[in-house]
Amino acid sequence: MNFTDKLKKAIESSGSVLSVGLDPDPARLPLSLKEQVSDPNGQVVEFCRRVINATKQHACAFKPNMAFFEAMGDAGWQILEEVSDMIPSNRIFIADAKRGDIGNTAGKYREAFFDRLNADAVTLNPLMGLDTLEPYFGDASKALFILTMTSNTGAADFLQRRFEGRLSLGEYIAELLSKKQERSETHLGMVVGATQPEAFEPVIKAHSKAHLLIPGIGTQGGTVESVVKATADHKGMVVVNASRSVIYAGSGSPEWEQEVSLRAEQLKEKLKPITERYVA
Amino acid sequence: MNFTDKLKKAIESSGSVLSVGLDPDPARLPLSLKEQVSDPNGQVVEFCRRVINATKQHACAFKPNMAFFEAMGDAGWQILEEVSDMIPSNRIFIADAKRGDIGNTAGKYREAFFDRLNADAVTLNPLMGLDTLEPYFGDASKALFILTMTSNTGAADFLQRRFEGRLSLGEYIAELLSKKQERSETHLGMVVGATQPEAFEPVIKAHSKAHLLIPGIGTQGGTVESVVKATADHKGMVVVNASRSVIYAGSGSPEWEQEVSLRAEQLKEKLKPITERYVA
Repeated sequence: MNFTDKLKKAIESSGSVLSVGLDPDPARLPLSLKEQVSDPNGQVVEFCRRVINATKQHACAFKPNMAFFEAMGDAGWQILEEVSDMIPSNRIFIADAKRGDIGNTAGKYREAFFDRLNADAVTLNPLMGLDTLEPYFGDASKALFILTMTSNTGAADFLQRRFEGRLSLGEYIAELLSKKQERSETHLGMVVGATQPEAFEPVIKAHSKAHLLIPGIGTQGGTVESVVKATADHKGMVVVNASRSVIYAGSGSPEWEQEVSLRAEQLKEKLKPITERYVA
Repeated sequence: MNFTDKLKKAIESSGSVLSVGLDPDPARLPLSLKEQVSDPNGQVVEFCRRVINATKQHACAFKPNMAFFEAMGDAGWQILEEVSDMIPSNRIFIADAKRGDIGNTAGKYREAFFDRLNADAVTLNPLMGLDTLEPYFGDASKALFILTMTSNTGAADFLQRRFEGRLSLGEYIAELLSKKQERSETHLGMVVGATQPEAFEPVIKAHSKAHLLIPGIGTQGGTVESVVKATADHKGMVVVNASRSVIYAGSGSPEWEQEVSLRAEQLKEKLKPITERYVA
């Protein structure tokens, strides 16, 4: 099944365009979980399992953030493999890696994320040039989400600055991606931060068929309303990610899983105006 | 000991500015090693051990490339931890990760590379803005090598293009890094590709005290002579990396370790004009 069909089915079966970001931080796990599971690595596995179970009815995608697993060393990579297996096969698995490297090395990252972890998509950094994306090409069941506009203040340093006559470097990247898409079976999507909708409108126009992964909702301060508005005419599909604001929604409570589930459900509801574009 | 002193001592004790890149690819291991060690993961560990032993007299630094370890899954991360422990403490350990992410996530990568693996330095991607470097600040014993000009053809897409009135985006990044250095105890070095010396001269001028990590020698086609010339007046120290051209120098031969050692020694000799700048 090609990536677009898989994403569409995931949105249909969950009735949601929400992606839940898995950023498991041992220091922030719910107290009640720590009391139930003694092994620290087991706590992380169990946390991810319960978050996935609590949110899968409200999310079309899960996005494990590599950094949080790598920070746990070799155990973290084992946990990541376990967590990858927990993501339902009718949901999209996005490996949030933001890698970017020359061909030889990029081929190894492709192996790590597509062949080993069996992710449906990976986030990538295009700074070194679009030739660094090519090792990921040739598989219609996969997608790349490429950084074009991010949600941090540092986006002003480079991505939001004028470049080659365009409004921003991000817009220029998007334009090149749109051309590059013609030579790739792998879908070239984009990561576009939600905190600066005025910066992202020209970016998404420049590559209008790209599926979008939009972080920055919740903890980072982006609003769902502005995303709904800014993507009204976009031809690719829109997936909106929330991480900390969902997974730590109930960390102080013994009923934390219900609170996590509720928070995901609330976001799903708020995102309905987007979901309804794809689901009859 | 601060990073600059540690690097200087590593150059003094090896008499070399060569960095050996560890890109262990199971498909390219020496045949004779495969015959001696039956376990595939053991082969990679043993390969790295022998490469380090064969080259440590000729190299001031080792640079494991994360992608090659990640492509081996959870076993790869274990191997990486073993290999990290093999790097002599009087040599520089550069984690070649090219990560770049927002503060929360960057803090986890810092934990992975500095706290877990105990690397002396990590390579980073600055596209998302210089605020993404700050979680790595505050430790004078560590260094960041930040991508400013790379050695692949795709560097022409963004890094070599005119930006904000400078000759290139790479030059502009370097200029911001030079200012940012004033606020960081962690050294802000740069990765500057060797295949385009004419593109890198303005970059290294813009951040003239930065230590440089120069890849692209050997397999990628950069020449030592052009690097020697282009860095003649540079105030930071220059480390030149070679990966595949060294570690696979003797893969067809039962005496592969001698050939790897010889190749490193030849590069050390060629790099003497640089080394002599730092060693009396």
